[in-house]
Amino acid sequence: MTMDPMSTIEKHESQVRSYVRSFPTVFEKARGSWMYDVDGNAYLDFFAGASVINYGHNHPELKKVLLEYLQGDNITHSLDMASVARAQFLDTFHRVILEPRGMDYKVQFPGPTGTNAVESALKIARKVTGREKIMSFTSAFHGMTLGSLSVTGNAFKRQGAGLPLTHSDSMPYCNYFGPEHDTIEYIERMLEDSGSGMDLPAAAIVETVQAEGGVNVAEWDWLQGLERLCRKYDMLLIVDDIQTGNGRCGKFFSFEEAGIKPDIITVSKSLSGYGLPLSLSLVKPEYDIWEPGEHNGTFRGFNPAMVTAGKAMELFWSDDRLENDIARRTRMMENFLKGLAAKYPEAQGSQRGRGMMQAIEFENEELAGKISQVAFRHKLIIETAGPSDQVLKLLPPLTTDDADLQKGLDIIEKSLVIAMQELGISKQAASE
Amino acid sequence: MTMDPMSTIEKHESQVRSYVRSFPTVFEKARGSWMYDVDGNAYLDFFAGASVINYGHNHPELKKVLLEYLQGDNITHSLDMASVARAQFLDTFHRVILEPRGMDYKVQFPGPTGTNAVESALKIARKVTGREKIMSFTSAFHGMTLGSLSVTGNAFKRQGAGLPLTHSDSMPYCNYFGPEHDTIEYIERMLEDSGSGMDLPAAAIVETVQAEGGVNVAEWDWLQGLERLCRKYDMLLIVDDIQTGNGRCGKFFSFEEAGIKPDIITVSKSLSGYGLPLSLSLVKPEYDIWEPGEHNGTFRGFNPAMVTAGKAMELFWSDDRLENDIARRTRMMENFLKGLAAKYPEAQGSQRGRGMMQAIEFENEELAGKISQVAFRHKLIIETAGPSDQVLKLLPPLTTDDADLQKGLDIIEKSLVIAMQELGISKQAASE
Amino acid sequence: MTMDPMSTIEKHESQVRSYVRSFPTVFEKARGSWMYDVDGNAYLDFFAGASVINYGHNHPELKKVLLEYLQGDNITHSLDMASVARAQFLDTFHRVILEPRGMDYKVQFPGPTGTNAVESALKIARKVTGREKIMSFTSAFHGMTLGSLSVTGNAFKRQGAGLPLTHSDSMPYCNYFGPEHDTIEYIERMLEDSGSGMDLPAAAIVETVQAEGGVNVAEWDWLQGLERLCRKYDMLLIVDDIQTGNGRCGKFFSFEEAGIKPDIITVSKSLSGYGLPLSLSLVKPEYDIWEPGEHNGTFRGFNPAMVTAGKAMELFWSDDRLENDIARRTRMMENFLKGLAAKYPEAQGSQRGRGMMQAIEFENEELAGKISQVAFRHKLIIETAGPSDQVLKLLPPLTTDDADLQKGLDIIEKSLVIAMQELGISKQAASE
Amino acid sequence: MTMDPMSTIEKHESQVRSYVRSFPTVFEKARGSWMYDVDGNAYLDFFAGASVINYGHNHPELKKVLLEYLQGDNITHSLDMASVARAQFLDTFHRVILEPRGMDYKVQFPGPTGTNAVESALKIARKVTGREKIMSFTSAFHGMTLGSLSVTGNAFKRQGAGLPLTHSDSMPYCNYFGPEHDTIEYIERMLEDSGSGMDLPAAAIVETVQAEGGVNVAEWDWLQGLERLCRKYDMLLIVDDIQTGNGRCGKFFSFEEAGIKPDIITVSKSLSGYGLPLSLSLVKPEYDIWEPGEHNGTFRGFNPAMVTAGKAMELFWSDDRLENDIARRTRMMENFLKGLAAKYPEAQGSQRGRGMMQAIEFENEELAGKISQVAFRHKLIIETAGPSDQVLKLLPPLTTDDADLQKGLDIIEKSLVIAMQELGISKQAASE
Repeated sequence: MTMDPMSTIEKHESQVRSYVRSFPTVFEKARGSWMYDVDGNAYLDFFAGASVINYGHNHPELKKVLLEYLQGDNITHSLDMASVARAQFLDTFHRVILEPRGMDYKVQFPGPTGTNAVESALKIARKVTGREKIMSFTSAFHGMTLGSLSVTGNAFKRQGAGLPLTHSDSMPYCNYFGPEHDTIEYIERMLEDSGSGMDLPAAAIVETVQAEGGVNVAEWDWLQGLERLCRKYDMLLIVDDIQTGNGRCGKFFSFEEAGIKPDIITVSKSLSGYGLPLSLSLVKPEYDIWEPGEHNGTFRGFNPAMVTAGKAMELFWSDDRLENDIARRTRMMENFLKGLAAKYPEAQGSQRGRGMMQAIEFENEELAGKISQVAFRHKLIIETAGPSDQVLKLLPPLTTDDADLQKGLDIIEKSLVIAMQELGISKQAASE
Repeated sequence: MTMDPMSTIEKHESQVRSYVRSFPTVFEKARGSWMYDVDGNAYLDFFAGASVINYGHNHPELKKVLLEYLQGDNITHSLDMASVARAQFLDTFHRVILEPRGMDYKVQFPGPTGTNAVESALKIARKVTGREKIMSFTSAFHGMTLGSLSVTGNAFKRQGAGLPLTHSDSMPYCNYFGPEHDTIEYIERMLEDSGSGMDLPAAAIVETVQAEGGVNVAEWDWLQGLERLCRKYDMLLIVDDIQTGNGRCGKFFSFEEAGIKPDIITVSKSLSGYGLPLSLSLVKPEYDIWEPGEHNGTFRGFNPAMVTAGKAMELFWSDDRLENDIARRTRMMENFLKGLAAKYPEAQGSQRGRGMMQAIEFENEELAGKISQVAFRHKLIIETAGPSDQVLKLLPPLTTDDADLQKGLDIIEKSLVIAMQELGISKQAASE
Repeated sequence: MTMDPMSTIEKHESQVRSYVRSFPTVFEKARGSWMYDVDGNAYLDFFAGASVINYGHNHPELKKVLLEYLQGDNITHSLDMASVARAQFLDTFHRVILEPRGMDYKVQFPGPTGTNAVESALKIARKVTGREKIMSFTSAFHGMTLGSLSVTGNAFKRQGAGLPLTHSDSMPYCNYFGPEHDTIEYIERMLEDSGSGMDLPAAAIVETVQAEGGVNVAEWDWLQGLERLCRKYDMLLIVDDIQTGNGRCGKFFSFEEAGIKPDIITVSKSLSGYGLPLSLSLVKPEYDIWEPGEHNGTFRGFNPAMVTAGKAMELFWSDDRLENDIARRTRMMENFLKGLAAKYPEAQGSQRGRGMMQAIEFENEELAGKISQVAFRHKLIIETAGPSDQVLKLLPPLTTDDADLQKGLDIIEKSLVIAMQELGISKQAASE
Repeated sequence: MTMDPMSTIEKHESQVRSYVRSFPTVFEKARGSWMYDVDGNAYLDFFAGASVINYGHNHPELKKVLLEYLQGDNITHSLDMASVARAQFLDTFHRVILEPRGMDYKVQFPGPTGTNAVESALKIARKVTGREKIMSFTSAFHGMTLGSLSVTGNAFKRQGAGLPLTHSDSMPYCNYFGPEHDTIEYIERMLEDSGSGMDLPAAAIVETVQAEGGVNVAEWDWLQGLERLCRKYDMLLIVDDIQTGNGRCGKFFSFEEAGIKPDIITVSKSLSGYGLPLSLSLVKPEYDIWEPGEHNGTFRGFNPAMVTAGKAMELFWSDDRLENDIARRTRMMENFLKGLAAKYPEAQGSQRGRGMMQAIEFENEELAGKISQVAFRHKLIIETAGPSDQVLKLLPPLTTDDADLQKGLDIIEKSLVIAMQELGISKQAASE
């Protein structure tokens, strides 16, 4: 390698790059919960590629089937022609995921990314209902293409459109005005009043936990309330489970414990289990009224991703071992964060999260970012979230063993202490 | 395999699937220009995954670097953090592609699909100019997310939006009213007249050959005229080279011979060379005014695709061998199609195309589809295009050897004869 | 008159006609608070042409100046050329209305109707701020042209657009969720949170009392809160005083007691005092950044309306006599309605209103409409309002003398009794 | 009058005022084709209030019925309640205008201005067809409210919206690319091609002569071609006859000689005959599918305007005298303008127009404006039109007697000579 990787990137890549600015090293290898840079440093990964790496980097079993598939010259790219890999994935997904949960959905491959799935979900909801508007929620994040962006809350991302974003109405998410106000009541008032000025929407699109928005958790009864409104006003309920699904929040689908039955579910990120782009829209059969080819996309037939995805279903969702691990690790993380908040009251932190998407929000808006920086110096990759980046977000791979998980939590505590010191929040001495 | 692949697909996959209806078999393996189904049938591929497979299926040299990369546990998914693979790709792309052509562009990874690249191009054009409208063209195809769809011509695809598509103006493409009318004059009239009702656009987005739209070819001087208008009216010129680039039309970029300098270029499909999802927006440095993270996407750091893409640049674009092959094969295809039209005047066919994107359009709108069906029976995969599917489109891998290419052309001729017979167009006997 | 008026109307006029269905007689003459039909019946007018007739029908002093103006062949139509009538109106309006209130506004004649004024207000707000969205309110009514309709709440009216209405966000009006919730807090939360998904608006447009929406009254401190938000977030505050202004709510402008200083005020309806179409947009001088002719309209120079408008200012607003009358009559109406609610608890009515825009809302949604019908049989013209027409709205001319006012109130009581009887609400006997 | 009218206007009125800048005097009285300012100067009116004053200012017969109506305390304002004046107008309009022409339309009073009529026409077209887009034309002018503005061509007016204007497609008007190109063919190509990117519109809205756009004349066969396209593609044909109707182009409706049958016709401006705001939408009965009140407007029941409108129909359209006068005066104007162009070749002028909407366009874009200025010094009111104000537009009252008409034409010639001299176009001496 004669070129210098970082300077090559800085010279040739667009200014739009962002994470490289937060984690300024050149990564080379990765395995399980660890990433390695060109200088041989090992980083514990509490970011997991924004929840793409739920089963760890380069999981050996997934790698094995992937290599076998590629070595055998099995077909890689097939658009939406039939392939053995596609059929096997559909069979496995149905058998391992849908059937045991009593779920009946048609599977659409809308293109390989989450935003493809969201765009197709919005289209079919509009087609089914004949309505144009979509109900979205405060702090929502659904993607960066124009349709998805219009249902995303973040003003900075929205302004990037260069267009007024329309055909959506942003409603208050669970606890948006604090726990004493039931926002479902607010929304119902707007829906039931034909003079409210809010046109009846085709659908509500919701994340059960708003990951990018700051790890805001929708309570089960709030989700049930939303489902009730959807039924009452003939709106489709779309759950965007792209970041929250694939076990991140405890179960394969994040909403299982709520007992709701979304009309459309979008799944992506960790779906392939190996970082290979793959995305699904699950649509109730009665709403699968697409004409052939009415929505399409070049990479909707990326077979290697289907192969690893099917294998990941078998490995992790055929029994309850992963679920049990997640439950235990969830408790470790929750207890740690609650304890952290209690132990360092000057940090003014408060824990929240569901499953292994955990977070601590600080009153001081600089603190989370500072912790992330310090943690990186201590070889922990951890990100911030929320409109002011005031939330420290913990997204370790679900498969992170308990010892590594504890190691990461320890770095967080150490980094918090240092960060407070650097920001002058705390007088306590702390040594790196 | 206990399940039946085709019935599994029919049972579980959404009605939106389309190519599987045209090519109803279950593919398993592929290599070079050949695809193989589960029953061991070999199909010659004149479709190339809609131009994703320009270098053939599972090219052995690309496969080799891909397997090595994966086996070595090199990092797969890294968002836009720095990685060795990313830096190497940027370096190679700059060295092999941009620099020798005197091109200076910032490289953006906007997400792994073509429509991600188009959406980001539209955003940055709007940001740079402060204008909202985009000039698109009749018969254009740019993708299926809301922004890309609004600049796509096809009414069936557009209606899928479930929304009135706005903020774009569709202008007549080259030769849209026949060769005697210069549509650039028309467009200029609309731009120069402040009373025309067409708001000055942020950009014009154009394909140099409209692949999905029916293989309509923009002449060099028309493209030059369009560039002139862009300069005169401070519009950005976006060339969507997703299907036409990567050598499909003769050179790496489809517009090289026109001598134009687009402000933004979108590249995808065959970029990775192996069917792995990868996409770029190339932006002139002066327009790379993104804020960090203003546009993003989960799978914008899919390293294996960068590895094969870099290797493909080295393999195919470091010297002029592929270009020469393409030029020779282009002549074979052109001569064949012109000859076909001359030999079977009752077919009322006319050849068109550029490079190895060749087509023949028939007056009888059923004929192209019928040929495609018959050809499939003769184990040739070939698609139709155009608003009425009246165009037979030849997109063999660029690496198809001359003998296989001739084999495919022969099947096309045979299929034409049978198809005409079946449609009652020709009285000539033809035996399968 | 050989033709029958009503059958002529039914035969030739569009189905869109509405009030003629509620008040099915043919009117011929009118004076003060009385309207007369072709059969010589006299109707007491508690509707006042939807607040156009605040000074009574055909007021003799206004009529006198109007006739003199017309008889003298003074100019009728002058677009926005200078005329004596225009200059005199501007002088009078400034001298009698603006100056004594310490108000400094530029006067725009945006066309002769209220919706012209609203459209021009929205335009200038967008131009001043460079923002596109407008904050509107639940139950708002601002007009029927596309821009005004997009900020109107009523679903039936909105659907008439035949387009998805966009570029507005409907926020909860004062007391929309009941008196215990301060909706200003809700709105502020949406504005201050850059992740709320509500783009910062160019302006808020508000009625101080929502007449069409059901006589919903905005409290003074709520209006002050809204003004504070406008200042804090650089939004313009537009008060649509078309129905509430011209003394209807007690003062010339409806918001005077709130002490707020709107950036733009729209005035129309009773402005000319004689039913002649006339409308104004009042714009703070610093926001009067129009280019000449950037907004225009054929009938923006209808001089006879300016003549009567100027005379009306002199007659009714040079001293406090009318204000005192309104205050006294307001008390009569309020006391009557409160008393009515108390006397007939089975009607489940509740009074509300401000100034001589008074209303009683009934739980039973049919009751208001039935009262209006019965009252018409008893020769009182009175309308309903609200999304379900569940509100009986009292809008007598401000100049209705106390005896006539009492006469109308008596008919309302009588009609209530009969209406309840007809609907089976009350067992009490009531004779017509 | 103690205040100075002009300085009062400059002090208090918005910067948006425009005509007062071109014709800087204070008008006081008007009669027939003459306007009088406060200093007693008499101006010959070749502008006619932008075609509102087709029958001259303050026509004595119309004045008589107006005064009688007002003196008799007949009802002025009645919304859409039935009134004697309304019924009489409907009867007269049907009897004098519609019936003799074999026209069957429902009459809607959409509000008192032209833009109200256009907005209601667009609404009903969208409702009837279920489509959203409207086909408009280059250089079109339809009004300044948001819906009308979106179908207006002028960039300056459009930018005033402060919003991207959408849901319309601007197509080339008759002769837009010169007489050798039939723009109907162009439009048909866009409509018939399902890949054109132009969504099928709900309606085409067209002026038969584009007055504001520069007096562009649509030929009869072009209008017939447009009607044919509307029938073929199930679009409604809307003729905006607001400025061209009421006899301006020779007949009552401007399109009578074309033999077309528009689905909707908008009429306003000179309809009342007296400068009183009045407007109609004429809708074919089968398309009159409004719900009651679905579109409304406060001043849709301005009875005095109906009274003068009915009288104007009787006076001017019960026989062919006015039509004959218009025909003769049209020839005078045409011959004069053609002669002018021939006599002063250095002016590079070319005549165009239909009926008494006549114009001369000059190559030198300053000339028309200069002529207008010089003419005003010579007491002739005459306006310019076109995107660069390069067109001198002659719009005298239709009732201008031949001597006055000749007087005006003479001033135009004299002004042309002076203007050319002032602009250095001509060497010829010319004395004022």
